[in-house]
Amino acid sequence: MTSTTSPAPREDGRADDELRPIRFTRHWLDHAAGSVLVEFGKTRVLCAASASEGVPRWRKGSGLGWVTAEYAMLPAATNTRSDRESVKGRIGGRTHEISRLIGRSLRAIVDYKALGENTIQIDCDVLQADGGTRTAAITGAYVALADAVAHLRAQGALKGEPLTGSVAAVSVGIIDGVPRLDLPYVEDVRADTDMNVVMTGDGGFVEVQGTAEGAAFARAELDALLDLAAGGCAELIRLQREALGS
Amino acid sequence: MTSTTSPAPREDGRADDELRPIRFTRHWLDHAAGSVLVEFGKTRVLCAASASEGVPRWRKGSGLGWVTAEYAMLPAATNTRSDRESVKGRIGGRTHEISRLIGRSLRAIVDYKALGENTIQIDCDVLQADGGTRTAAITGAYVALADAVAHLRAQGALKGEPLTGSVAAVSVGIIDGVPRLDLPYVEDVRADTDMNVVMTGDGGFVEVQGTAEGAAFARAELDALLDLAAGGCAELIRLQREALGS
Amino acid sequence: MTSTTSPAPREDGRADDELRPIRFTRHWLDHAAGSVLVEFGKTRVLCAASASEGVPRWRKGSGLGWVTAEYAMLPAATNTRSDRESVKGRIGGRTHEISRLIGRSLRAIVDYKALGENTIQIDCDVLQADGGTRTAAITGAYVALADAVAHLRAQGALKGEPLTGSVAAVSVGIIDGVPRLDLPYVEDVRADTDMNVVMTGDGGFVEVQGTAEGAAFARAELDALLDLAAGGCAELIRLQREALGS
Amino acid sequence: MTSTTSPAPREDGRADDELRPIRFTRHWLDHAAGSVLVEFGKTRVLCAASASEGVPRWRKGSGLGWVTAEYAMLPAATNTRSDRESVKGRIGGRTHEISRLIGRSLRAIVDYKALGENTIQIDCDVLQADGGTRTAAITGAYVALADAVAHLRAQGALKGEPLTGSVAAVSVGIIDGVPRLDLPYVEDVRADTDMNVVMTGDGGFVEVQGTAEGAAFARAELDALLDLAAGGCAELIRLQREALGS
Amino acid sequence: MTSTTSPAPREDGRADDELRPIRFTRHWLDHAAGSVLVEFGKTRVLCAASASEGVPRWRKGSGLGWVTAEYAMLPAATNTRSDRESVKGRIGGRTHEISRLIGRSLRAIVDYKALGENTIQIDCDVLQADGGTRTAAITGAYVALADAVAHLRAQGALKGEPLTGSVAAVSVGIIDGVPRLDLPYVEDVRADTDMNVVMTGDGGFVEVQGTAEGAAFARAELDALLDLAAGGCAELIRLQREALGS
Amino acid sequence: MTSTTSPAPREDGRADDELRPIRFTRHWLDHAAGSVLVEFGKTRVLCAASASEGVPRWRKGSGLGWVTAEYAMLPAATNTRSDRESVKGRIGGRTHEISRLIGRSLRAIVDYKALGENTIQIDCDVLQADGGTRTAAITGAYVALADAVAHLRAQGALKGEPLTGSVAAVSVGIIDGVPRLDLPYVEDVRADTDMNVVMTGDGGFVEVQGTAEGAAFARAELDALLDLAAGGCAELIRLQREALGS
Repeated sequence: MTSTTSPAPREDGRADDELRPIRFTRHWLDHAAGSVLVEFGKTRVLCAASASEGVPRWRKGSGLGWVTAEYAMLPAATNTRSDRESVKGRIGGRTHEISRLIGRSLRAIVDYKALGENTIQIDCDVLQADGGTRTAAITGAYVALADAVAHLRAQGALKGEPLTGSVAAVSVGIIDGVPRLDLPYVEDVRADTDMNVVMTGDGGFVEVQGTAEGAAFARAELDALLDLAAGGCAELIRLQREALGS
Repeated sequence: MTSTTSPAPREDGRADDELRPIRFTRHWLDHAAGSVLVEFGKTRVLCAASASEGVPRWRKGSGLGWVTAEYAMLPAATNTRSDRESVKGRIGGRTHEISRLIGRSLRAIVDYKALGENTIQIDCDVLQADGGTRTAAITGAYVALADAVAHLRAQGALKGEPLTGSVAAVSVGIIDGVPRLDLPYVEDVRADTDMNVVMTGDGGFVEVQGTAEGAAFARAELDALLDLAAGGCAELIRLQREALGS
Repeated sequence: MTSTTSPAPREDGRADDELRPIRFTRHWLDHAAGSVLVEFGKTRVLCAASASEGVPRWRKGSGLGWVTAEYAMLPAATNTRSDRESVKGRIGGRTHEISRLIGRSLRAIVDYKALGENTIQIDCDVLQADGGTRTAAITGAYVALADAVAHLRAQGALKGEPLTGSVAAVSVGIIDGVPRLDLPYVEDVRADTDMNVVMTGDGGFVEVQGTAEGAAFARAELDALLDLAAGGCAELIRLQREALGS
Repeated sequence: MTSTTSPAPREDGRADDELRPIRFTRHWLDHAAGSVLVEFGKTRVLCAASASEGVPRWRKGSGLGWVTAEYAMLPAATNTRSDRESVKGRIGGRTHEISRLIGRSLRAIVDYKALGENTIQIDCDVLQADGGTRTAAITGAYVALADAVAHLRAQGALKGEPLTGSVAAVSVGIIDGVPRLDLPYVEDVRADTDMNVVMTGDGGFVEVQGTAEGAAFARAELDALLDLAAGGCAELIRLQREALGS
Repeated sequence: MTSTTSPAPREDGRADDELRPIRFTRHWLDHAAGSVLVEFGKTRVLCAASASEGVPRWRKGSGLGWVTAEYAMLPAATNTRSDRESVKGRIGGRTHEISRLIGRSLRAIVDYKALGENTIQIDCDVLQADGGTRTAAITGAYVALADAVAHLRAQGALKGEPLTGSVAAVSVGIIDGVPRLDLPYVEDVRADTDMNVVMTGDGGFVEVQGTAEGAAFARAELDALLDLAAGGCAELIRLQREALGS
Repeated sequence: MTSTTSPAPREDGRADDELRPIRFTRHWLDHAAGSVLVEFGKTRVLCAASASEGVPRWRKGSGLGWVTAEYAMLPAATNTRSDRESVKGRIGGRTHEISRLIGRSLRAIVDYKALGENTIQIDCDVLQADGGTRTAAITGAYVALADAVAHLRAQGALKGEPLTGSVAAVSVGIIDGVPRLDLPYVEDVRADTDMNVVMTGDGGFVEVQGTAEGAAFARAELDALLDLAAGGCAELIRLQREALGS
């Protein structure tokens, strides 16, 4: 990815269209069918894919598989310790929202028939948070999912290729009027507009979620952010492929 | 709004860029500072704005007000009765997600300083659901909010004009390859891509949430949906103004 | 109903033994098997009856149907907004109590054998509260139930006539020493004694719940209240019949 | 209490208007300000009254005291073990209903001003259930309350006499057409009509809760039940006085 | 048990190696298969064993039985009233911990094959707490269990002798440097080290749980406590046998 | 630590009194005052110590600090995925029990006066579980706590040395009659007796928790296990010191 010049330099010295250092450490866990510790700079998410025979009751007998995801954050992941949701006895709205987003994103590239009546459960646990935890989670979850699928294939449990493509996600935002890629926490809190974009390996959009934090944003800004995100996702897809050695 | 021709006619006979019949019944409740029964076709949402002195503890002494929202659906609002979240003892992810969306959308046009240390709580209860409940809720919530603000002004409780603009929302989607505005339930379930767009009265974007239900969508499709949504929101803004008699 | 003279006139000008204006709007919802918006003055309750095949597990194979009810109040229904029970994560004692009362009242006039293994779930949601919400809910629930039964009959799902009668309810109370019928909120809070009476169409008692709010009440007062309630229920039964067009 | 003849003899040989053997064992606990193990035949309820300085936040500074009650049943109290509400994580409707009833009944004979800003919390735990647990609980709770008041008086914590009277409760019902007093479980399940009546020491009604279990009941039956209950409560009041040695 | 001399006399005059007065009142409940009110001085625990056919789902078809236990404390059992866990909506850590301990202790002497596919549920409810509630609960639970087993045997529901031994428990602690047996509350709060020991009738250890409340304890102290506990458990086993008349 | 010969070799080739490879990775997190990833073989626990000014309400104004701990396990940490406690809405008994154990263990070596009115919250999250997660958690928690204390000292927030010593923990058990140190999962499930021992740096016992999984254990076995644990804890204390570079 070529860096472009920008008037206000980023605190970490990156170009506006440059990703943070991305790292995938596969097989981080011994038990899970697939697992990866994904890092977007200081953001660190442990993605684990557990495969089990069978599907939820409402899907039994359909011949179709199921993929679902849960997102959570360790209490000490953030700057200021946050309370445990298990202790509070209820899951917060933000957690719910992100879990659902990850699940939808993955399901966009899954062929349930080929998966057969197997369930893959993805757990994305944020060990350290520095902005972009949901996009790191999606990007890592795909790698864990790919490993879990390979694991199921090795066991002869599949009826075809369940992955119809790959998926990655990145955040973009407008800081002081400048569109930027992959925001760390310090930029995220200052962003006027904040957008998370999930894309497939062949450049299709799976999710676009843009929010005006301050003033509403114009169509031209939206367009610039989408361009920036498309570039970032393409790079992430390349890095995923590299990590998976394919 | 001029209707355009479209190859596959909609079940309710509307043009692709045509809203369902929109109706605002203001002052539907006697107690709330502002209330409106908003209807987008058969979708019927009761929006109530309760105003109270003071703000949540974490905001005390700041001189700033607070606006928050809760969304819920009556059990019999949908085709098949759904269980009560109060009975289940927990709020579902979808409910959380929509409540947060409504709150963010309204806050985009609120000047907290002018509101002073007052809280406006918006309740959006879906009495009947036929697609687009969240967009109807946002659109109606603005009207209830405007009435609540007028109520506070009449009481001399404000420090200026707390509303910096207006806000409305509409759903758009691609059905059988055709972009359509304001989807009822029958279209919603068939949509390949589903998008909710929240816009201000002067045409800025507050929220853009697009989801590929089936295949990922291309940038051109995204652009077409945004165009359609902009038209729909402009019309809704006009109808809100009409309803508010301003 | 003839009005009687009374020393202290009621705020709304009614005679002591006069009901508030009663209104039933049937088929208020498109999906539910039966639905009615019932109004006792400003008290407005949406009663929806959902019919489904089958019965709870503990009743399966018995050949008997089941009727159950849930009562809830929208947050903005009351003078001062009340918190949502779904948000609090638990149902309050009052809600529990009233849900159970409605269920028992309806079950008093249901023949489970004739209903067959079908379940009718009644939801009574108070949209606006001005006293007597539980009695309005019971009175409206009967109408919704009757419509749901008609719906099941039209589908050929019944084994006979499941309704052995009709049921209605009214509140009575002693205000400043005077027994009064159908108390609105302003009277309710001032009542020394408060009683809710549920009766069948042929004048039998289903529930009698009297509570001394201040001093204990004498047998003579109890007798006067029962007389007043019997008159009110008879009138409500007449209005139900009228609404149902039978 | 003189026994009357009745066509169908009761299983335990009692006359229709005869109470079960009633026993109060005061000071059953060492810590509570007042405590009594009350027995209505095999029904055994431990009533404990805990006194503490201060009142709930919403009542602070009012100069008024507070009395509240909680009812619960041990899992093994009934014929078939019931699940613990603490394990289920929610309180059932019946428990809520009875707790509220006990609280209201006691508050009917309390002068809050004389109590001063003290709180008395009554716990009624059913150790063994054989019908009439709520009426035994109310009847015993009064004795525990009286002891707690004496305890507070000895401490010089009162501003007058907080008890304006005494209160007792009994169940009545119609079994095979015959009105009967103080129903044990075997009669309770067979009753056509079931009524709980709470009365003060000077013969006033505090609560009347009658329910038709089968067919609706006639006014004459209601009158007969009220007569029977009045006799039973008078006898219980006498026994309370005897137990309290006053 | 012979008493030994000790420098600092205990408040209740016991020797350091002397149990409080122990009392077992069997058949305290009419319904439960086995029940006992066990008293360790002022500590009073009602232990009820409910027997039911069948086992939890995960054990079905195994031919094995199941024994489980729940511990709870009445609100007024302690010096200062504690809140009800059912009202708080969650079970506290201490309750969980003790319930699990009781279950494990009993399971140590149960032969599941001989029990057959029957479940025995033990409920230990502390009616009054004065230290050592968990050890009293275990000791009493064994007696209730033995009675429940006898009950099942009388019904011909067993496949052999399910009890492979007996089990009892006692607390020990170091107070002012002196090891003491069976601590009441006043000693418990002052103990430097606190240990609960569960032993079988033939002198084996089932559970040893020692905790340094203040400074860590030395091996010699640990040894002294274990000696003391062994003596106490032996005496309790003798008393259990006596109570069971065997 | 010298290895001894043993008849049955361990699956991982260790001597019976040999620890698994122990690893402490300090400063694993950027935000927490202290953090360490501790590994006991494949068991991996992330311990984070968050320091904050102030203490819980019940301790305010006492001049004393507070140390507390929470333990949790990621869903994919175990062989078979376990459900999230946040999703279940309640914390399990085992989690509660271990959280309390960690807290007590740490508090045994803390001088609250020297800590001043500061709170240190320790989070122990098991990322991968292979037996001994609670002992690894305690051992790691001490290191994180030491780092957090150093952090507070650097800020000048302390009133002295809050750590009166160090603390470590290890599991021991009897497998096929042979006492063994530091059990991995495969040994843990086969153990007849299982014990967790927490000791201070100067060889005192903080907690001893022994459980007979199968048959009760004899005093001689208990003694052998305590010897083994003492050796293991001494070695862990040495490794902690090494890791802390002191």
